[in-house]
Amino acid sequence: MTTPSTPTRGYTASKDQLLARLRRVEGQVRGIERMVDEDRYCIDVLTQISAIQAALDKVALGLLDGHARHCMREGAAEGRADEMAGEMMAAVARLMKRG
Amino acid sequence: MTTPSTPTRGYTASKDQLLARLRRVEGQVRGIERMVDEDRYCIDVLTQISAIQAALDKVALGLLDGHARHCMREGAAEGRADEMAGEMMAAVARLMKRG
Amino acid sequence: MTTPSTPTRGYTASKDQLLARLRRVEGQVRGIERMVDEDRYCIDVLTQISAIQAALDKVALGLLDGHARHCMREGAAEGRADEMAGEMMAAVARLMKRG
Amino acid sequence: MTTPSTPTRGYTASKDQLLARLRRVEGQVRGIERMVDEDRYCIDVLTQISAIQAALDKVALGLLDGHARHCMREGAAEGRADEMAGEMMAAVARLMKRG
Repeated sequence: MTTPSTPTRGYTASKDQLLARLRRVEGQVRGIERMVDEDRYCIDVLTQISAIQAALDKVALGLLDGHARHCMREGAAEGRADEMAGEMMAAVARLMKRG
Repeated sequence: MTTPSTPTRGYTASKDQLLARLRRVEGQVRGIERMVDEDRYCIDVLTQISAIQAALDKVALGLLDGHARHCMREGAAEGRADEMAGEMMAAVARLMKRG
Repeated sequence: MTTPSTPTRGYTASKDQLLARLRRVEGQVRGIERMVDEDRYCIDVLTQISAIQAALDKVALGLLDGHARHCMREGAAEGRADEMAGEMMAAVARLMKRG
Repeated sequence: MTTPSTPTRGYTASKDQLLARLRRVEGQVRGIERMVDEDRYCIDVLTQISAIQAALDKVALGLLDGHARHCMREGAAEGRADEMAGEMMAAVARLMKRG
């Protein structure tokens, strides 16, 4: 039912893609520093912060997806499925509450 | 495959626990309707809304935990691991963005 | 005190609209109880929970909007502007962290 | 540096404090890049992402607080109170949905 060639859909992200996204986030944070430094209108700064948070959520989902697809499968093979599901739920809870 | 005593830690919740939490949430929503109807101070109503959202997040984490521990294991046995990981990620993304 | 035409844009909501939304949320929570009771697929239940969270966010924004437009203006007239801004920020912080 | 009378409570933050927080966030993002590059355990990376989201939320609340205390007061004096309340609600909505 699923294709054997691993269709990299949805939130799946390669290490290079994750790094590229993080570098872009780093640049966005520097952009906000500049905006604050130049006393730009606070609502515009807030819009940029929301954009960064959305980008970080995407990175987080890419990592979680890798965890669910790979780490958890290896963990299951080693009898650590419950432990790893618990870890993943704690991570999701922190993401939902943001820290 | 899993320990027979099942150490119900973390976010694991039984069907009865989930239903009890949802009934409590239903009561909390009715409580907010009353507060709005009686023109109570908006900040107090907002505090109650945050409490309901936290309770619903807990229900969601309980369901996700069951999904990660049970459905995904069954799915893996049927060769649907990738499909189910994708479904779970989409659900987590919706919870993070709240709808 | 407020403009007589009141351009009801954005998140502004009347008491009747808020109550109607809350009654709908109450029905949605009951719907989820039924889904859990009938052992419906967890991912479908999670989708419904996200829909409720979005609906509650909309109620919260309607209340915050009223607070910013009316309560804060009255508070400012009574010299309580800082106190009320502080209360509002605490409410926003709780909504962002969901409780 | 801040006005001596103003009880700088809650989320109020000076420009210097905001800039210091943003520089710290920038360093945290670089730390995550390193973690991903070194193939560190995904759950640990996710914990760091949640810490950044919490730090950005704090920056956002500091900016919103300034908006509510200062910009909105000036706006009210210029008859733009409704417009500015609408802008602030849209910003809060984006923060709640994260982008």
